[in-house]
Amino acid sequence: MLDIAPSQQAAAWLGSFGRALEAGDIEAVANLFVEDCYWRDLLTFTWNIKTMEGQPAIRDMLKSTLSTARPSQWRLAGEASVDGGLIEAWFSFETVVARGEGIVRLKDGRCRTLFTAMSELKGFEEQKGPARPLGIRHKADPDRETWAEARAREARDLGVREQPYCLVIGGGQGGIMLGARLRQLGVPAIIIEKNARPGDSWRNRYRSLVLHDPVWYDHLPYIPFPENWPVFTPKDKMGDWLEMYARVMELNYWVATKCVSASYDEAEQVWTVVVDRVGQRITLKPKHIVFATGAYGPPRRIDLPGAEAFKGEILHSSQYSSGEKFRDKRVAVIGAASSGHDVSVDLWESGAKVTMVQRSPTTVVKSDTLMEVGFEIFSEKALARGISTDKADMIVASTPFALVPKGQRALYDVIRKRDAEFYDRLRASGFAIDFGEDETGLLMKAYRTGSGFYIDVGACELIINGEIGVRSGAGIKWLTPSGILFDDGSELAVDAIVSCTGYQSMNETVATIVSREVADKVGPCWGLGSGVKGDPGPWQGELRNMWKPTAQEALWFHGGNLALSRFYSKYVAMQIKARMEGIATPVYGEPSNSGR
Amino acid sequence: MLDIAPSQQAAAWLGSFGRALEAGDIEAVANLFVEDCYWRDLLTFTWNIKTMEGQPAIRDMLKSTLSTARPSQWRLAGEASVDGGLIEAWFSFETVVARGEGIVRLKDGRCRTLFTAMSELKGFEEQKGPARPLGIRHKADPDRETWAEARAREARDLGVREQPYCLVIGGGQGGIMLGARLRQLGVPAIIIEKNARPGDSWRNRYRSLVLHDPVWYDHLPYIPFPENWPVFTPKDKMGDWLEMYARVMELNYWVATKCVSASYDEAEQVWTVVVDRVGQRITLKPKHIVFATGAYGPPRRIDLPGAEAFKGEILHSSQYSSGEKFRDKRVAVIGAASSGHDVSVDLWESGAKVTMVQRSPTTVVKSDTLMEVGFEIFSEKALARGISTDKADMIVASTPFALVPKGQRALYDVIRKRDAEFYDRLRASGFAIDFGEDETGLLMKAYRTGSGFYIDVGACELIINGEIGVRSGAGIKWLTPSGILFDDGSELAVDAIVSCTGYQSMNETVATIVSREVADKVGPCWGLGSGVKGDPGPWQGELRNMWKPTAQEALWFHGGNLALSRFYSKYVAMQIKARMEGIATPVYGEPSNSGR
Repeated sequence: MLDIAPSQQAAAWLGSFGRALEAGDIEAVANLFVEDCYWRDLLTFTWNIKTMEGQPAIRDMLKSTLSTARPSQWRLAGEASVDGGLIEAWFSFETVVARGEGIVRLKDGRCRTLFTAMSELKGFEEQKGPARPLGIRHKADPDRETWAEARAREARDLGVREQPYCLVIGGGQGGIMLGARLRQLGVPAIIIEKNARPGDSWRNRYRSLVLHDPVWYDHLPYIPFPENWPVFTPKDKMGDWLEMYARVMELNYWVATKCVSASYDEAEQVWTVVVDRVGQRITLKPKHIVFATGAYGPPRRIDLPGAEAFKGEILHSSQYSSGEKFRDKRVAVIGAASSGHDVSVDLWESGAKVTMVQRSPTTVVKSDTLMEVGFEIFSEKALARGISTDKADMIVASTPFALVPKGQRALYDVIRKRDAEFYDRLRASGFAIDFGEDETGLLMKAYRTGSGFYIDVGACELIINGEIGVRSGAGIKWLTPSGILFDDGSELAVDAIVSCTGYQSMNETVATIVSREVADKVGPCWGLGSGVKGDPGPWQGELRNMWKPTAQEALWFHGGNLALSRFYSKYVAMQIKARMEGIATPVYGEPSNSGR
Repeated sequence: MLDIAPSQQAAAWLGSFGRALEAGDIEAVANLFVEDCYWRDLLTFTWNIKTMEGQPAIRDMLKSTLSTARPSQWRLAGEASVDGGLIEAWFSFETVVARGEGIVRLKDGRCRTLFTAMSELKGFEEQKGPARPLGIRHKADPDRETWAEARAREARDLGVREQPYCLVIGGGQGGIMLGARLRQLGVPAIIIEKNARPGDSWRNRYRSLVLHDPVWYDHLPYIPFPENWPVFTPKDKMGDWLEMYARVMELNYWVATKCVSASYDEAEQVWTVVVDRVGQRITLKPKHIVFATGAYGPPRRIDLPGAEAFKGEILHSSQYSSGEKFRDKRVAVIGAASSGHDVSVDLWESGAKVTMVQRSPTTVVKSDTLMEVGFEIFSEKALARGISTDKADMIVASTPFALVPKGQRALYDVIRKRDAEFYDRLRASGFAIDFGEDETGLLMKAYRTGSGFYIDVGACELIINGEIGVRSGAGIKWLTPSGILFDDGSELAVDAIVSCTGYQSMNETVATIVSREVADKVGPCWGLGSGVKGDPGPWQGELRNMWKPTAQEALWFHGGNLALSRFYSKYVAMQIKARMEGIATPVYGEPSNSGR
């Protein structure tokens, strides 16, 4: 079969696959996959974000879903290609209620990985391009309501006379992108944000912060950054962009609003949410609530014995915004991941004498290196090859999580060689480096624990040169009035301590707003159950609780960096829209916390 | 020669053309054109916006410019096509100082029309795509100035400690787009705007206003409207877009600022401009000033004998923003062009009894019709054929003004037939219709006089049904205390009069800010010198004074609808940038007012 052109092979496979599905012949479908196979589905069959690993899992899934989904119209999209012995082909298809798209990778004529993702709900397509709204009835009308009047009425009535179908808690990048998607789908939604302006979640961070990811990876949906946008966006510029985006996308965005409490009436299937809007208590009755409160939950404060004796200031990185007051002061930064490095540099730039206290090894990658070898499909070169950000998103999503470590290990073999001299110098400074328990590097740490890594945008040179000190290897015994006493008996005299010790899981935010019971029922967010330290289990082939149904009906989590928020906001919005329109959404698979 | 493929013919012509230019053989160049030929140039040869009509004009131009421009590298861009017996080909080329692009149309192997346009200045290319700025130096730096700090410093210092190279007077769509272009080229510029916020020039207009042109024609540079943007943008939504655009494009945009006076020091080659910024007088010293005060100048108020006797209110359309106070009042709207119709509908929607007083016939086209037959290359269908807005702009610009009427006449033959019944019904209501003195319709009226036309978005049906009355054919004799007395002795009793009588030429704004002398030296803006009533002459093959050097050094005019502002802002910005960088810009051709 290998002498046939890739597109013909792919078409043949897709044809067999489509016919077997149509015939309801689940055994025939399963036989089209190799033994070590993966099928990742975003909503089309499962109304879930779910990866089936192996033929038995695929069989089980189809037994539950096939008669409802009734997929058809499987068609290749473009020409297939060959990469690493696998044939890769993009395709489109339909279910009863939706249109879908996907990517299949074939090995010797059988499927190694299949990715299916919902594109749009039939009858509820976004109004764009040729289907964009007209914006005016071309007719004089004494009862005309202008656009401005309609917007003002909506802003006045929603949450007062009319209830939002969905409440998004948190108006950072995640909440804003989800809000934009929901609006395009006609889902009445309110986004509440504790800060005074959209974008403040970026503006309020430390002075020198600039995005570590490049522009091609950071686009928002609908309005991509312009061609003149810098590769690395400064935090305040990002704030301005988010502010204008929320405005022109016509979001119902409530500033200076905090969520006080939320409880779900299982019988009535409605939430009662109390919010504090600029000091005024308002009760909302949404059908769904989405926690978009940031990739992480509340700050994780570590226990520092003797803290009450320490004479200086102790603060968490979330409270740190400027190093100005630490000029000429000795500051210990506890934690050596991203915020630990960024805060250390910010302090050093402000004239503080900084010592980083490293409690466990850090995965470090030079930004330039990551740009070149890690962000290959999010780049100007990729664009020139026709790989838009949307396509790159699909490519990333098409790889099942189980197979990501292998590619990442190979990547870090390259990176370690490439930057060997850099790593030697950094180690020589006393800084402890690792690439994760299984040598898979930064991305896997981000997925599994969200901690323990740093993209080097300048701190490492300061550490290497000794401008920023490092204490690594010794545990903190207790604080003395004048500094830190370590396990090995050594002391570090400091005037202040900044804890860059990360954040708790997002479900801790649920505990503070809904209840401990619901937070525990839902369980932690993020993590893959890989078995490495700090990664909540069990293994389910997907990130826990993110962007998909949870153990609590009508409670959702949305978030992640700009790229994840961009991509998955589409699927969160479609899940909520389908429920609003009364489309049957039978969820296949247990929620994340079921295995605990 | 006609049996050769179009691209080969075009390549052959371009090759001969390039060789003849390189050899300095002007006679050979001229012989490559048919007798009835046109060459429109934007800056590349002429540092002007100039159309050479016929071989002698081309010869004269080349004699003056060829040795300086030294063009080379003429290359076809894509495949040539055939349309109406002409071969059309796109190409690129270079001069000593710039890169250019263009379109040639060949008839029997010789050139009928040539269009050459500057794309970018060598060494001063915009930083975009692969050349976009990095946005950060990846290095810790104790002297770091963040993006927010740099922007704040610039906003504080520009116009105070540092002088802008260019001052743009007027911050509507034209000023904003030009400001964005200048910023991308690194030209220090301030845009001053009398209103409180960017976008107010739209927001402050009458309540029901919605753009008459479709979205594909209205894009701003750098950040196109998103796919979900409505076809026809409501005025307040446009205001919001402009406001966010000015913000994210980082314009130095001074709100609540009026230009009090400006005078040019010919010896020092610098302007002294006094502005009133939120009540504070500030003197600026820019090298160039650009009037971007709107497509038109001050309101044109007509003389109404007996106005002092009339008991009701008389206002100009520029003062009209809402019909609310005219409910159940009888109102005469004088003028039957765009604003006359829009104001009439707005009044009718507010419950006024409206009579439109038509002083001369109006060119009317139904909006739907214009969308289908007139905006063919600015549409979703055109996009599907690969004609982006940028390409469509080039296509429009490539047709010399002398040839536009022919195409427009043909278009109106189609329109008149298509909507014959509509026109009959409208005429039957007493409304006078024309299609211009030479039957060329709306676009030519817009270019020549900027008046006398209406794109029907609903008013005509009200006129046909008698909901809005029409008085046509009789002149206004004088006003009585209670209404209007016409030449034919008839009277119209009204409670108020709204003059929708248009605006004076932009150079009248120059008279109020600089001097009458400079305004007269420069002469009127717009108009083609076609010989029709109201079109200032003489014929120069181009619009008068717009986007190009004027009779007053360092004084420029910029404006037009969104499409013209988008396209020509690029060339205004490059002309100013070239002067800032000391690039020789020998202007070929006399300024617009020379023939007066």
